[in-house]
Amino acid sequence: MHPFLYRKFGFMGSQEDYRSADFVLFGVPMDFTVSFQPGSRFGPQAIRAVSEGLEEYSFYQQRSLTDVRFFDGGDVDLPFGNTVSSMKRIEAVAKEICADGKIPIAMGGEHLVSLPLIKAAAAKYPELAVFHFDAHADLRDEYLGEELSHATVMRQVAGLIGPNKLYQFGIRSGTEEEYAYGSQNTHFFVDELLKPLQQVVENWDDTPVYVSIDIDVVDPAFAPGTGTPEPGGCTSKEILQAMLMLTRLPIVAMDLVEVLPAQDSSQRTSLLAAKLIREALVGITPLKKAFDK
Amino acid sequence: MHPFLYRKFGFMGSQEDYRSADFVLFGVPMDFTVSFQPGSRFGPQAIRAVSEGLEEYSFYQQRSLTDVRFFDGGDVDLPFGNTVSSMKRIEAVAKEICADGKIPIAMGGEHLVSLPLIKAAAAKYPELAVFHFDAHADLRDEYLGEELSHATVMRQVAGLIGPNKLYQFGIRSGTEEEYAYGSQNTHFFVDELLKPLQQVVENWDDTPVYVSIDIDVVDPAFAPGTGTPEPGGCTSKEILQAMLMLTRLPIVAMDLVEVLPAQDSSQRTSLLAAKLIREALVGITPLKKAFDK
Amino acid sequence: MHPFLYRKFGFMGSQEDYRSADFVLFGVPMDFTVSFQPGSRFGPQAIRAVSEGLEEYSFYQQRSLTDVRFFDGGDVDLPFGNTVSSMKRIEAVAKEICADGKIPIAMGGEHLVSLPLIKAAAAKYPELAVFHFDAHADLRDEYLGEELSHATVMRQVAGLIGPNKLYQFGIRSGTEEEYAYGSQNTHFFVDELLKPLQQVVENWDDTPVYVSIDIDVVDPAFAPGTGTPEPGGCTSKEILQAMLMLTRLPIVAMDLVEVLPAQDSSQRTSLLAAKLIREALVGITPLKKAFDK
Amino acid sequence: MHPFLYRKFGFMGSQEDYRSADFVLFGVPMDFTVSFQPGSRFGPQAIRAVSEGLEEYSFYQQRSLTDVRFFDGGDVDLPFGNTVSSMKRIEAVAKEICADGKIPIAMGGEHLVSLPLIKAAAAKYPELAVFHFDAHADLRDEYLGEELSHATVMRQVAGLIGPNKLYQFGIRSGTEEEYAYGSQNTHFFVDELLKPLQQVVENWDDTPVYVSIDIDVVDPAFAPGTGTPEPGGCTSKEILQAMLMLTRLPIVAMDLVEVLPAQDSSQRTSLLAAKLIREALVGITPLKKAFDK
Amino acid sequence: MHPFLYRKFGFMGSQEDYRSADFVLFGVPMDFTVSFQPGSRFGPQAIRAVSEGLEEYSFYQQRSLTDVRFFDGGDVDLPFGNTVSSMKRIEAVAKEICADGKIPIAMGGEHLVSLPLIKAAAAKYPELAVFHFDAHADLRDEYLGEELSHATVMRQVAGLIGPNKLYQFGIRSGTEEEYAYGSQNTHFFVDELLKPLQQVVENWDDTPVYVSIDIDVVDPAFAPGTGTPEPGGCTSKEILQAMLMLTRLPIVAMDLVEVLPAQDSSQRTSLLAAKLIREALVGITPLKKAFDK
Amino acid sequence: MHPFLYRKFGFMGSQEDYRSADFVLFGVPMDFTVSFQPGSRFGPQAIRAVSEGLEEYSFYQQRSLTDVRFFDGGDVDLPFGNTVSSMKRIEAVAKEICADGKIPIAMGGEHLVSLPLIKAAAAKYPELAVFHFDAHADLRDEYLGEELSHATVMRQVAGLIGPNKLYQFGIRSGTEEEYAYGSQNTHFFVDELLKPLQQVVENWDDTPVYVSIDIDVVDPAFAPGTGTPEPGGCTSKEILQAMLMLTRLPIVAMDLVEVLPAQDSSQRTSLLAAKLIREALVGITPLKKAFDK
Repeated sequence: MHPFLYRKFGFMGSQEDYRSADFVLFGVPMDFTVSFQPGSRFGPQAIRAVSEGLEEYSFYQQRSLTDVRFFDGGDVDLPFGNTVSSMKRIEAVAKEICADGKIPIAMGGEHLVSLPLIKAAAAKYPELAVFHFDAHADLRDEYLGEELSHATVMRQVAGLIGPNKLYQFGIRSGTEEEYAYGSQNTHFFVDELLKPLQQVVENWDDTPVYVSIDIDVVDPAFAPGTGTPEPGGCTSKEILQAMLMLTRLPIVAMDLVEVLPAQDSSQRTSLLAAKLIREALVGITPLKKAFDK
Repeated sequence: MHPFLYRKFGFMGSQEDYRSADFVLFGVPMDFTVSFQPGSRFGPQAIRAVSEGLEEYSFYQQRSLTDVRFFDGGDVDLPFGNTVSSMKRIEAVAKEICADGKIPIAMGGEHLVSLPLIKAAAAKYPELAVFHFDAHADLRDEYLGEELSHATVMRQVAGLIGPNKLYQFGIRSGTEEEYAYGSQNTHFFVDELLKPLQQVVENWDDTPVYVSIDIDVVDPAFAPGTGTPEPGGCTSKEILQAMLMLTRLPIVAMDLVEVLPAQDSSQRTSLLAAKLIREALVGITPLKKAFDK
Repeated sequence: MHPFLYRKFGFMGSQEDYRSADFVLFGVPMDFTVSFQPGSRFGPQAIRAVSEGLEEYSFYQQRSLTDVRFFDGGDVDLPFGNTVSSMKRIEAVAKEICADGKIPIAMGGEHLVSLPLIKAAAAKYPELAVFHFDAHADLRDEYLGEELSHATVMRQVAGLIGPNKLYQFGIRSGTEEEYAYGSQNTHFFVDELLKPLQQVVENWDDTPVYVSIDIDVVDPAFAPGTGTPEPGGCTSKEILQAMLMLTRLPIVAMDLVEVLPAQDSSQRTSLLAAKLIREALVGITPLKKAFDK
Repeated sequence: MHPFLYRKFGFMGSQEDYRSADFVLFGVPMDFTVSFQPGSRFGPQAIRAVSEGLEEYSFYQQRSLTDVRFFDGGDVDLPFGNTVSSMKRIEAVAKEICADGKIPIAMGGEHLVSLPLIKAAAAKYPELAVFHFDAHADLRDEYLGEELSHATVMRQVAGLIGPNKLYQFGIRSGTEEEYAYGSQNTHFFVDELLKPLQQVVENWDDTPVYVSIDIDVVDPAFAPGTGTPEPGGCTSKEILQAMLMLTRLPIVAMDLVEVLPAQDSSQRTSLLAAKLIREALVGITPLKKAFDK
Repeated sequence: MHPFLYRKFGFMGSQEDYRSADFVLFGVPMDFTVSFQPGSRFGPQAIRAVSEGLEEYSFYQQRSLTDVRFFDGGDVDLPFGNTVSSMKRIEAVAKEICADGKIPIAMGGEHLVSLPLIKAAAAKYPELAVFHFDAHADLRDEYLGEELSHATVMRQVAGLIGPNKLYQFGIRSGTEEEYAYGSQNTHFFVDELLKPLQQVVENWDDTPVYVSIDIDVVDPAFAPGTGTPEPGGCTSKEILQAMLMLTRLPIVAMDLVEVLPAQDSSQRTSLLAAKLIREALVGITPLKKAFDK
Repeated sequence: MHPFLYRKFGFMGSQEDYRSADFVLFGVPMDFTVSFQPGSRFGPQAIRAVSEGLEEYSFYQQRSLTDVRFFDGGDVDLPFGNTVSSMKRIEAVAKEICADGKIPIAMGGEHLVSLPLIKAAAAKYPELAVFHFDAHADLRDEYLGEELSHATVMRQVAGLIGPNKLYQFGIRSGTEEEYAYGSQNTHFFVDELLKPLQQVVENWDDTPVYVSIDIDVVDPAFAPGTGTPEPGGCTSKEILQAMLMLTRLPIVAMDLVEVLPAQDSSQRTSLLAAKLIREALVGITPLKKAFDK
């Protein structure tokens, strides 16, 4: 093949080797339980496509992706319309990555994909705490008769890890029951983000942390490409600052979900997602990896 | 309430009374088994919204909707993400309408919704034949491991009514297996529409007919708002002519599916769908209804 | 009609009964005097359509729409292109609602519709004060030779209720004459919103208040769907905070105008409007209603 | 001013001089009586803007705009919202152009603008016949209580010149009353265009002709940018052929209306309009002009 | 890496091996000499992305991509803004592919990329004829002072292979000089496509053929995503039929250019391009390849 | 020509006379070296088109464009694809304007156009300092092998005027090398704008200043219409405040670049650009002009 030809794949700066990677990025193109606008299944490929418009170097952290060992593993192959089987596949992928001592970073897809990802992480790190950034509480008991739904995912997580291990930031929408449950059971920060996050981060011990970012925590002015936009959210600067704060925590897994390219005029939601992932990759401390030493 | 206020609902010209209606129009906002672009769940409301931009009178048939007794029954209430339960609900709704001696006209939603609709019609009319207009054969045995899918729906229908009762027009895409199955088992008109339709219609006896129109049978130039557009289809004039031909058949039920408003620049797909429904309503001969005589 | 079918109309959570309602929401689809981009006639239906994407419960006020008695009365039926006759019809509708002891909440449509609405309110409440949120002063004497125009509406209002009863917030655009008139005659807060509003609200007596929100007071980043966008406005958080402050006033009527769906990429302008209306409905104190006691 | 700077205005190839022109092109940015989607006021500037993407030479007629003496006179200055006064201004402009022995070519704007234009032409040419291309009959007696409306314009024209002088092509939508009136009174070609046009053209005497093209006569696949799109129309090739046929007639004035840029994805409607105007300009025979001889 | 993960690259069905391939597909993301709308540099990635929405099997030819040995080589790495250096790189890539006995199929990018591609092919096949499908003649001597431009490319080609070896179909736009040159020198089929193509194909000897398709030969209704759309073109059915005819010729290289995703509402232009490439791949007879025998 | 006709050109309020103007506005429609999304060539005409939606009077400065003598000189006529020749033409135009004692204000086009503009200004004002507002450092040595590129422009400027005369505000993206170069050589304010600007302005002497604003310094929520959007920027309010601060400096020339209309949903980027230019025109102190005294 002629040297002038190049065949590129994946998130900018991804290396070609799974084994030596500290981070494994992958897409989870599932969106079939959403109640409003579907289409987040195209989120991962949109984030990859725009990532080439960004620099590998972070001015905020003065570090470069070229110094990070990460691998873009592609997407999880999902049977469309089959929720249970999809969840099992997602969990299996995440489990292997955790077992290999790497940090999985998943790109959604709808928010329900966080459940199998958190299950996989909690299996390896039983003390796991979850940091949840979202416009919506996602704390329903059931939704339209279904227990597994993007609207119930954090209630399921609370059942799994204990509600006192769940930190919810930026929440500004939900039912009366969700408000009551959150206020009484989780760390529930309504319509607030940076201030409570700073406090929590400053007092954190070494409990392993899972970070789940629903991009709709950001105001639709900055992140219009999402399925259930909710006016009144934070700015792109604030979520970037939040990401920088988070990198000081012992993060063991992460997801960024609900990017919906079909509504993403000027692609700024995908770009913001790609930039948050870049900051996560250059900022999060890799785990010690037994097998490559 | 002040007489200057008006509260409108439904497809243009819908009467307010189910009981005396000859036709019952309803939406089936299901799209969760699609493999490419979801969003056809918003099809029914888009078709209703644009219908007010059309006239009630048909220049083609010189008849008016005001002389037709039809009722817009709203949408089937579906549990998002639960395919099996959704299919049961759709079938129940259609069964009741058929039992009441009325003609159901369903607006999709994805093509899988045709299966419960045809089941309901076939239960009442055991000799039922199905006229299928589509870019895709939809004749797969299974799709991504699932038997119930928009890509398998006509194979399921063939199993239900017998492949020799299935007439497929305008088909221009599918797998090698679908091509083989269709060629050998169904009335399979590849990349042709008006000519074979005319022949079939002219020789038809009084076997009851179900009409299923996937809007992607039309070229994406005329119907861009659909989930799996396939260049090379018929024009809007041709599908209108097809609809006029069809009204000469003893139609007992009908669906029009796969309208996807998110891709429907200038709303012309919804408008075409609304116009096809208007022509169906003014053209199809109502059934004899025992209970209102 | 089968119980699985539902036929919905109107703003989320609207009850079906005018008589017992404390609030009457209605649309005013008029946009024919605008000088730049028309299309706000489709504002009311867009606001209703997106309202189902919001929750009925407000996290900000910890109250729910389900506890509010309001009725969506549909749209005022207007003769397109006839300004004078349209204005009379709007006034008649609003007068009846006021006479019935209810609070009218109107969705525009262009800003000129505020004039007949305010006339109706001032007829019932002679002491009426008007709170006007807008990017534009709307204080022209005449516009292109016409006295009745979206650009003259607040000058007409000032003539009607007296300029010292007119409070204008967030204004950042107008002619030299409008600037001079506003500075000398009305309560004129240039490029400021929350700070002066707080002061005014805190010192308010029980004078009845009419609230008129032109959505373009918000920056086009947060509210792109409007006819004459003016960069440099407030955020969605700020207008939500303003709405919460306003609910402490004795509001007797309200409008929210100039939502233009054709420019509303990601529908966030309609969503913001719907959310502001929800906060108004759950927050404003209903009037005492003689006839249902 | 530096010679590298250029300041361009108007339709491609327009000369800078009114006096010596055989054709005067001008815009009529009026859209305030439309009942569905307004915005055609921006039509003229969109047609001008895209015209530079076309060639001045016509391959169809093997003639060039550079050999035609035409002047782009800009737009008629209209008082927004005032229909009567706007109509008077449009008529005055067209009258002067006709009086000067030139051919006016107007770009709409809504279809109602044809009425004052035809009045002006009929004043000069009492025998005037009108060739009307449209999806809609526009033959209503009144519309929403108004006699002056885009939906009544051709009925008014019929009253003015006599219905037997009105030729209507491509009509495919209207009320029952319009159908009846057209069938009995005008030359009414339902859903047909090229064939009847050819017959009429071939048998034409030297009666002066006014051509009015509503761009929605073309199918929305080819002309999506219009306010009331009606599926089932002609192709862009067919309307171009129609224009070429028309150039054989003694045309004394022309309009092309209802281009709506806000819905004109890929600008192909404006481009088609610009191309039709180019063909008209290079093909229509100029009038004898006393004053420049 | 977990087996549930898949990392896909390139046009659907591409094999992973250059050496054994009969066809090499590659992108040429160059668009910097265009005079109207740039952005076709994103054409190749858009065509690849939508290709997964198509089937590998062709109903038209009853053959499948799975039986074709082709390799997607990625894109030519180009120095943006440097025309001369870019052309050299494109030529080098194509030369190697030709030298290896394979058929290059290039995806543009702007039309100027055809020049180095044809140079490469003509170097190997001195008798080369070129079949050019386009709305524009592209026969200018120079354009804005430049000899190398998308508007001059076929004049350059004529100079290279001789104008009598150049066949131009569907041409409907150009200058008077281009019309004159084409009429007198090349096989110049104005506004015609299928009919002359059929005649030429039926009488063809075994002269090697290069096919260059500018997607704007198709009407913008069917192919809106292109930089200089020209209303009045062929349909998607017609260009598909043309492609099927072409496969009967001894094609040695091909390009498909000017797909501009930014204007490609509903992605139907990319889909049509992908479908044309699929038909080319399954239909064109591979060359004898010495080195793998 | 009839007095009801008006032919408008250029930015709102432009006078018709170059000679007496203090400011000369002109467009530079060049975009052929950009690496990501081209199309900013259409920026100048978009800014002009939307300018009529703004008022001539500035509420911020309480001054009006009607009191400013400025001339819109149209666009520089550029040979597309020829970078070197284009740069020479731009420089020639700017040189003449400077020589005439006027202040040039250029609308881009891509950022590379600043280089010839600054060359022209530095030739007249050898002490020239440059204030650069941008998301990107634009300090590369070379880019894809080219020295002349939008990514190298400020490095070239630093070479021209000396890096210590270069002030860079709001920069938040670049390579490691750019970060190092900027930190060590220029006045380099990373991710900061108003605060450092205020300090610099307050301490400024009478050194002549060139202002270069890349619109992407603003967050894509407020300015989506640009080629390389970078989330995390300033608001429209902040850039307006910056412009007001800048007017206190002795500005001798200015540019505003990288407005890309194709991505400018709701046209708010063009509107913001037009508003910034209005504030510049009403606020900047004109130079003493020998020749008109």
